[in-house]
Amino acid sequence: MIDYNGFLSRAAAHMQESAIRRMGAILAQSADMISFAPGYPAPETFPWAEFREIAQHLLSGTDGSVLQYGPTRGFRPLLDAIAGIMRDRGVSTSLDRLLVTTGSQQGLDLVARVLLNPGDIVLVELPTYTGAITAFRNVQARMAGVRQEADGIDLADLDDVHGRLTGEGHRVPLLYVVPNFQNPTGLLIGLDKRRRLLEWAARRNVLILEDDPYRELYFDDSAAEADVRPIRADDTEGRVIYLSSFSKTLAPGYRVAWVDAPPPVAGKMEYAKQAEDLSSGSFDQRVVFEACRRGIVARQLPMLRAHYQHKRDVMVDALRREFGSTISWPTPRGGFFLWATLPGGLDADALIPRAVEHGVIYVAGEAFFVSAGGRDSQQARSTIRLSFSAPAPARISEGVKRLKAAVDAELAAVIPAAQSR
Amino acid sequence: MIDYNGFLSRAAAHMQESAIRRMGAILAQSADMISFAPGYPAPETFPWAEFREIAQHLLSGTDGSVLQYGPTRGFRPLLDAIAGIMRDRGVSTSLDRLLVTTGSQQGLDLVARVLLNPGDIVLVELPTYTGAITAFRNVQARMAGVRQEADGIDLADLDDVHGRLTGEGHRVPLLYVVPNFQNPTGLLIGLDKRRRLLEWAARRNVLILEDDPYRELYFDDSAAEADVRPIRADDTEGRVIYLSSFSKTLAPGYRVAWVDAPPPVAGKMEYAKQAEDLSSGSFDQRVVFEACRRGIVARQLPMLRAHYQHKRDVMVDALRREFGSTISWPTPRGGFFLWATLPGGLDADALIPRAVEHGVIYVAGEAFFVSAGGRDSQQARSTIRLSFSAPAPARISEGVKRLKAAVDAELAAVIPAAQSR
Repeated sequence: MIDYNGFLSRAAAHMQESAIRRMGAILAQSADMISFAPGYPAPETFPWAEFREIAQHLLSGTDGSVLQYGPTRGFRPLLDAIAGIMRDRGVSTSLDRLLVTTGSQQGLDLVARVLLNPGDIVLVELPTYTGAITAFRNVQARMAGVRQEADGIDLADLDDVHGRLTGEGHRVPLLYVVPNFQNPTGLLIGLDKRRRLLEWAARRNVLILEDDPYRELYFDDSAAEADVRPIRADDTEGRVIYLSSFSKTLAPGYRVAWVDAPPPVAGKMEYAKQAEDLSSGSFDQRVVFEACRRGIVARQLPMLRAHYQHKRDVMVDALRREFGSTISWPTPRGGFFLWATLPGGLDADALIPRAVEHGVIYVAGEAFFVSAGGRDSQQARSTIRLSFSAPAPARISEGVKRLKAAVDAELAAVIPAAQSR
Repeated sequence: MIDYNGFLSRAAAHMQESAIRRMGAILAQSADMISFAPGYPAPETFPWAEFREIAQHLLSGTDGSVLQYGPTRGFRPLLDAIAGIMRDRGVSTSLDRLLVTTGSQQGLDLVARVLLNPGDIVLVELPTYTGAITAFRNVQARMAGVRQEADGIDLADLDDVHGRLTGEGHRVPLLYVVPNFQNPTGLLIGLDKRRRLLEWAARRNVLILEDDPYRELYFDDSAAEADVRPIRADDTEGRVIYLSSFSKTLAPGYRVAWVDAPPPVAGKMEYAKQAEDLSSGSFDQRVVFEACRRGIVARQLPMLRAHYQHKRDVMVDALRREFGSTISWPTPRGGFFLWATLPGGLDADALIPRAVEHGVIYVAGEAFFVSAGGRDSQQARSTIRLSFSAPAPARISEGVKRLKAAVDAELAAVIPAAQSR
């Protein structure tokens, strides 16, 4: 028998399965399961007919490069289109700053590889996106969580945490934030706070990794385009590395996203990407470019905003109807997620088997926390992330009903047990 | 001004641009350039009409998962099809060993991340594939080259190099080989030697990374399916990690390849891939699956073998006609590459500007060598890799003519200069 542990790298020893990906396996077990777990966009919103037309056009065979290897930086016309999108978001950029990535997940991974040494500490919002946790952990970096308020990351806590860590001699080169409809909380960082974050980063000489997949999905009743202005738009000194994606505005199956980074960082990310996959899919990049060129992306956006806002409404109404005031959440002003605190101090992770039994799943809050134990352990234990993006409205209502039944069953089982102790 | 050097990781300091990717930039400069540089398949061989049909079928909109996020391991029906392909190659495998990757390049990168620590040494054939060099270097591993003979890697030298390095206290966990039509030499490892390699790896407790993208492209006049039997096929103890790809048998633009690895290694590779890109392209994987299911891959193979064999013939004939016996090479029995030694001890790297001037490019041998200086520096300096896969036959002949003119011009310039010293 070969002892593979003797062959694994130190980095591999840190690698773990993502909690969200694990949920995918549970989902596959039952056809009637209602899933609030993964943040999947709704396939019925994808522009299928347009994609068929584009595929016919691209696969005529007259342009062999459609299915050939391509440049690592990305398909040049797509990069130009992305520069245009960045301009529309208030960001002036250039080709030496841009790189197409195989999903924003690859952007996170490339940033981690290019900026982080083992033992370095990344500052993250608490809670934060699991995919970022995985990318940082895989290069053996550690994370320190910073509290969030109603308008996003708490600047006083940020400075405290940073000061404490650097005082202890740690290298703390990076702050990771999702300013728009954060995954998992749905929170939005206030505009004034965005500018103060930039000032803070300059003062402390920290780079900001701004992950912005949801910004186009603001809900008209409570947010506007002005509210989702990128931090990057006011970055004059090259402090910000910006990630965004077509996964939520077109379709995730094409795996097309991008990075905007200061040229020395973008250059190293290009070399890291050469080793990771040579280039993102050539066909995929051309489909996305055509969807930009033909105005399909722009046409999708108002429909998508209305679609996800309606689903948010259905979920909020169902939660209110089923749970009354025993469950609480900050109302999402955009994006895919609702972050709820369970009643009665219930343990969200322990509730999962019962939820599955009732035919509904979610992601327990713990997956999004980086410091086990300590001041946030109670919040981690009793929170859940509910994605309202994928299920049909009737399924959302039904799923919340099932969640209520699971919670009631758990409370009935847990409270007498606690009282008899 | 921000000093980005202070922010870059130690790994980033090791990252460099791939020589082959750099050639892509030169190629883009001139429309009339004849490129023998990148190992691109010929787009006129891609099954365009079948791809159009498949795209229409997949994009009907009836199955939303076609453009949704997918499992990290890969699209299940495709994994089953890959298991069938492996059986056809003499390998018995199972789903816990398989992972779809975003090109075999991602397979190389995942193996590097999961098995190699900074400072570890990978044994490689000399010369070896640049993409592997990049992947190993990006995790700060080092490489030690092993000589090749007419029937591939030199087992005596392999044991010498390994013994010397382990004697010096180095960790040497991995041997990387391309047994079939190696990139860049086109060499084939003999069947008996494959079995002896396995015995050697067991004796020295080394894992073998077997990279096998070209195996289906054997040329009927000098090779047969029996000659390309994977090392993995005779691996009974889990010594071999096997990579292969659809890039050369269908099209590289879809970026679909796979790994077969012992389950504990495959599991860690899955976690590493979760952080790298969550999953490979969903649409791409379904296209490839449909091409398997409909028998398109199987139908392509005889045509591809004849296509590339013909181009090999055209290149060999042109080299013989233009250069007579002043240039030498091992005749490729399959694959995409011809590895030639320039006449008169010419420096292949120094010749590039003159070749570009004459409208032809290649990759200078040095890119494939891992030990600068030393015993192989002369071979590195005067060798070139010529890819005959992409250009049309008439362009191959014309390109070789241009190469001869460039060599003649260089010899005329260099030899008098050397004589006057």
